[in-house]
Amino acid sequence: MMRLRLEIAYDGTDFIGWARQPGLRTVQGELEDALSRMLREPVQLTVAGRTDAGVHAGGQVAHFDTAAEIDCDKLVHRLARFLPKDVRVKEIRVAPSEFDARFSAIRRHYEYTLTTSRYGAEPLQARHVVPCRAVDIEAMRAGSRKLLGLHDFAAFCRRREGATTVRELQRYDWERRGELLIAHVSADAFCWSMVRSLVGAALAVGEGRRTPDWMGGLLDQRSRSSEITVAPAHGLSLMSVDYPPDAELALRNAQTREMRTVPSPDGCCGG
Amino acid sequence: MMRLRLEIAYDGTDFIGWARQPGLRTVQGELEDALSRMLREPVQLTVAGRTDAGVHAGGQVAHFDTAAEIDCDKLVHRLARFLPKDVRVKEIRVAPSEFDARFSAIRRHYEYTLTTSRYGAEPLQARHVVPCRAVDIEAMRAGSRKLLGLHDFAAFCRRREGATTVRELQRYDWERRGELLIAHVSADAFCWSMVRSLVGAALAVGEGRRTPDWMGGLLDQRSRSSEITVAPAHGLSLMSVDYPPDAELALRNAQTREMRTVPSPDGCCGG
Repeated sequence: MMRLRLEIAYDGTDFIGWARQPGLRTVQGELEDALSRMLREPVQLTVAGRTDAGVHAGGQVAHFDTAAEIDCDKLVHRLARFLPKDVRVKEIRVAPSEFDARFSAIRRHYEYTLTTSRYGAEPLQARHVVPCRAVDIEAMRAGSRKLLGLHDFAAFCRRREGATTVRELQRYDWERRGELLIAHVSADAFCWSMVRSLVGAALAVGEGRRTPDWMGGLLDQRSRSSEITVAPAHGLSLMSVDYPPDAELALRNAQTREMRTVPSPDGCCGG
Repeated sequence: MMRLRLEIAYDGTDFIGWARQPGLRTVQGELEDALSRMLREPVQLTVAGRTDAGVHAGGQVAHFDTAAEIDCDKLVHRLARFLPKDVRVKEIRVAPSEFDARFSAIRRHYEYTLTTSRYGAEPLQARHVVPCRAVDIEAMRAGSRKLLGLHDFAAFCRRREGATTVRELQRYDWERRGELLIAHVSADAFCWSMVRSLVGAALAVGEGRRTPDWMGGLLDQRSRSSEITVAPAHGLSLMSVDYPPDAELALRNAQTREMRTVPSPDGCCGG
């Protein structure tokens, strides 16, 4: 058996999300079906971040095991002809058997893209750029900085049975690129709807409805806050996932599994 | 009466082209319908470049006359709520009565975008980026340079009754941006399918099937060349249109109309 690691990109618009659901169009379903047909064996993918409906990816990571003889580069080529245009396998490489796309991940990087243009998003960007009003980006930056570090992000999380809401937010800053506003959000892992709640909270500050201190104060809440408007899914993209060096994989897996004493059925993420 | 000049962007994917056709979804139809409803008077647009099905625009220009009282900025805002996401009016301003989006135009700028990535276009760019093989960009540049200047581009034009095929190609160069290849193509005007034929010819050179000299030699042909493969529509975008200063508009209109002694029923362009 050989373990393969895939880097995957998709336009989430016409998918009901990553996770396979019978009768619905999902990224996992499209990929597993294409791989199973091409390799003539059933393929089951394990993924770093189970993105929600409408969420995109530029650098999602997944793995699977195969008994087939694989030429990785050729398989990337063949998949490009086989897959629909809104999902691409960008790279395939052989990984150590200890590599686990979900449990070995040490950091996920998301981007959320807004535009302050008065006419809305450029048509060719409308599938992944969300219109907003003129905002005070310095206030958004000040509020976002208050959330950095290891905290209980319960206020920002939709509850899921057995999933912890304690996370380490390692990056949350705002870049201005012309009329685009891009949030860069990185953490060890994210609870459900967390990135979109972080963005919704910053927007309330940027539009002057709340203060940066209010944003920091949300960390004191022990359950999901009704004061936060969750930003729309289509502005969100999973950009990349970090893993430790191969030699540290076994150690990392043990550590992650231990942290999740009650296994969450649906993985660690969702953005 | 007041003449208004509009700058327009659209994702051409789900349009049958610019020009209104009964029962079909066209950019002109969407815009005229929205404007007519909002201004409560029939609106008819005159456009700089009548783009084909699937062709996009970042800076198309059109004009219309209205008897209504218009606040241009407010109208841009209101249109953003009224129009579908794949067409945007980016700017509206009052123009002199001599301004004619079609006859006053002195230059049209197109871009054509390819990717040499082995997995094809990034999913979020798949609507406007066309996959191609690894190419020799220097050969493409050499061939493209041979076409610059005032020539009869008959070899590159689908015939249209009464339309001249003599054009001045002012810019045709190739930019590499990572794995993207972007052709910048500017001329006083374009005949039907001209940009896509120029790109198709350059690709034949880039892939080593033809030489740069072959590309130059196409200018000697007096009718559409069967040796040229027309590149797909969805890689093409009309980026902007140049006009002379207001004081020279009347002169320019007279000049353009004279050049077209036999009126072409469908405008000057099409890319």
